[in-house]
Amino acid sequence: MSRISYVNGEYLDHINSNVHIEDRGFQFADGVYEVFGVINMKIVDYQGHLNRLYNSLNEIRIKSPIHKSAYLFHIKNIISKNHIKNGLVYLQITRGVASRDFKFPKNTKPSLIIIAKNLPDNDYEINFQKGIKIKTTKDLRWKRVDIKTINLLAPVLAKQYAVDNQCQEAWLVDEDGFITEGSSSTAWILKNNTLYTTPLSNSILNGITRQSLIKGLKKNKLRLIEKKFNMKDIKASDEAYITSATQYVMPVVRVDNIKIGNGKVGKYAEIFKKVYMEVVKLS
Amino acid sequence: MSRISYVNGEYLDHINSNVHIEDRGFQFADGVYEVFGVINMKIVDYQGHLNRLYNSLNEIRIKSPIHKSAYLFHIKNIISKNHIKNGLVYLQITRGVASRDFKFPKNTKPSLIIIAKNLPDNDYEINFQKGIKIKTTKDLRWKRVDIKTINLLAPVLAKQYAVDNQCQEAWLVDEDGFITEGSSSTAWILKNNTLYTTPLSNSILNGITRQSLIKGLKKNKLRLIEKKFNMKDIKASDEAYITSATQYVMPVVRVDNIKIGNGKVGKYAEIFKKVYMEVVKLS
Repeated sequence: MSRISYVNGEYLDHINSNVHIEDRGFQFADGVYEVFGVINMKIVDYQGHLNRLYNSLNEIRIKSPIHKSAYLFHIKNIISKNHIKNGLVYLQITRGVASRDFKFPKNTKPSLIIIAKNLPDNDYEINFQKGIKIKTTKDLRWKRVDIKTINLLAPVLAKQYAVDNQCQEAWLVDEDGFITEGSSSTAWILKNNTLYTTPLSNSILNGITRQSLIKGLKKNKLRLIEKKFNMKDIKASDEAYITSATQYVMPVVRVDNIKIGNGKVGKYAEIFKKVYMEVVKLS
Repeated sequence: MSRISYVNGEYLDHINSNVHIEDRGFQFADGVYEVFGVINMKIVDYQGHLNRLYNSLNEIRIKSPIHKSAYLFHIKNIISKNHIKNGLVYLQITRGVASRDFKFPKNTKPSLIIIAKNLPDNDYEINFQKGIKIKTTKDLRWKRVDIKTINLLAPVLAKQYAVDNQCQEAWLVDEDGFITEGSSSTAWILKNNTLYTTPLSNSILNGITRQSLIKGLKKNKLRLIEKKFNMKDIKASDEAYITSATQYVMPVVRVDNIKIGNGKVGKYAEIFKKVYMEVVKLS
């Protein structure tokens, strides 16, 4: 079975899915994206991701190339055409094709690409049982990471640095020694039965999984403080987690050479996962 | 006559020149580039740009997809196939095509794209006579702009902000109020017969035109101080300029609401242009 992708109005064999070399996504990182998790053929947190997509488009002044109501149609088509059970949908919009020039082109139609990918059925559960290891590194990103753009080289280099150090994710450290977030996830620690995560600003992405987990914490009266944390706080923490659109709630068992708790997945991890899954109504 | 571009080993009609939607240049800005000026069919500062290309590749750990000696062959072919007299060659290398994942893919061949563009014969001279206007704006870029990567959304937004304000270029201002550089050029001011430009660091690109002009200044015993400057210094300046691979030395006649000198192109502009053109042996 061949993979099918959506490219500017057409459903194409993934292998033959191309964009022009002067697409501004290719030359200038002039675009935005979203990743939608898929569990049991259902899209996780659809409305949250769509709203953020429109917010990103608005921030960098790209007009949606299709009507807002048409996204769900194409995303569902891509899920069905690719027989996605558990996996993800990746959607990218760029400012379109134009002769290379930094300033915005006039009358150029934005490009829209939708891709889907299956993940092994028990992938998430296996990783959840083991927990993941984190490597910290300097946050070198630009100053508007609250916009979900494809300006992603800094997180790419951070993630590779983590992998080079036998870790699965990087936590990014600002100039004052505080963790901003992961290279492609939100960072959390648990200390004295209280969850901590970095407050919203231009320095972190307003994670959709973060939003939903916070909703669930409130509903279940679990304590959360939105406050920056540093290595000292990590050392003193009982548990730690990352959240993201495809990792949901994922426990962290090590940060650099610091064992979190006893170095095994903590007992609250399962609780927070359940809280999250209840919010997105997939448990 | 149709334009021809070089794409991964093939010479293609520009209009049919594509890359895959999972090229990491398109999804992650995971690539580097160079722009070569062309004057009278000759490549300006070839060796400087090629050396910097290799430096950029090295910094983000991409291997050149072709031998170092083969670049000149393909660039010359592209210039000749497109009948470029005065214009530019744009060359981009990305980490190649791979299933989307932040970490580096294994065994993926980097992508190489070469495009050429003619500019109107007297374009540069006309702009030079008028001088250009500058708008200042916050420097929002990532912390390794010394590497010439396609992570360019921040400069794109800065340039568009300049255009929205009837200016041709943006000068980027750091957190301490100093100009780092232009959105796609180096910034210079002249005060008391001394040129000032920002010293090299991770916060500016080591401009090839900057390097060549500095060589010429030394040869001609013209005073240069590499030192950061701010709005107060701009107000006190007699002349100002930008330099870049396609604008060479370009006089600045206004920065925000500050008229530089008497608001017309200063008398040193022609001298610095000549000094530069002598270094690159094109005067």
